[in-house]
Amino acid sequence: MALEIERKFLVDRDLWRPRHDGTFYRQGYLSRAEDRVVRVRALAGRAAFLTIKGRSAGLSRIELEYPIPVEDAELMLDRLCERPLIEKTRYEETVGGRLWTVDVFQGENDGLILAEIELSSESESFERPAWLGREVSDDPRYFNSELSKQPFGYWKTP
Amino acid sequence: MALEIERKFLVDRDLWRPRHDGTFYRQGYLSRAEDRVVRVRALAGRAAFLTIKGRSAGLSRIELEYPIPVEDAELMLDRLCERPLIEKTRYEETVGGRLWTVDVFQGENDGLILAEIELSSESESFERPAWLGREVSDDPRYFNSELSKQPFGYWKTP
Repeated sequence: MALEIERKFLVDRDLWRPRHDGTFYRQGYLSRAEDRVVRVRALAGRAAFLTIKGRSAGLSRIELEYPIPVEDAELMLDRLCERPLIEKTRYEETVGGRLWTVDVFQGENDGLILAEIELSSESESFERPAWLGREVSDDPRYFNSELSKQPFGYWKTP
Repeated sequence: MALEIERKFLVDRDLWRPRHDGTFYRQGYLSRAEDRVVRVRALAGRAAFLTIKGRSAGLSRIELEYPIPVEDAELMLDRLCERPLIEKTRYEETVGGRLWTVDVFQGENDGLILAEIELSSESESFERPAWLGREVSDDPRYFNSELSKQPFGYWKTP
């Protein structure tokens, strides 16, 4: 069991450019309930994980993750997960000694770029990269599980 | 991936008696949707599994199962799974060279006993034990995921 503290931000498309290759993520949900998210994720067809997340409490939530065979993940993505799937390319950026993950969404969430940082406490400080936009940690529309229900491409006001 | 063919029957409480010790099962659901059941199961606190099942197609369905740490299962059962949990003692019986699993339900499903046999095809024959009652393979009320929503104790007509 782990308590995960993540802060999530929009990214300025004009200022951010990938500095390394990214990894293609294909993911879907067996449950998108707010209290119990069950996610299937395949990384570039090379590794796969089943992840269970509880309800967010502030910036913290229970998260459990298990590696699974890639062929199991592909079967669940193809035949069991709710539609639409989430497709995105994940990049990693180090800024001020800290790791950011930057997700460039594709498919029905095309146009959306999100950056996340993991912290050890909710009050921990960090350097803000130049490309960092508005914080959306508390906006449930930006949860991947919600982006699978209501993709960004269909929003009227981001 | 495995396709599982199971037939399920009621058990005559007056004729069936356990011949060996049983194992206490505590299980709950992260998803009870008909298309994608996600089950957490702890066996007597000694082993635990996360299981994903697809929609039943006749007597067949997709089933994927992963062993997980018992403490993860207990955390999910205590804090994430839908209520009520399923509690039952599972016994194994060999009849005519075939293995039956007999589940004696407790808690909100007290009074219900179900027997299951796994077959390699839908038409495979088998010896019927004397204690075997009516077949309920096709009755969704007897799915454990449904017994967690509508426990047997609250039914008007079994």
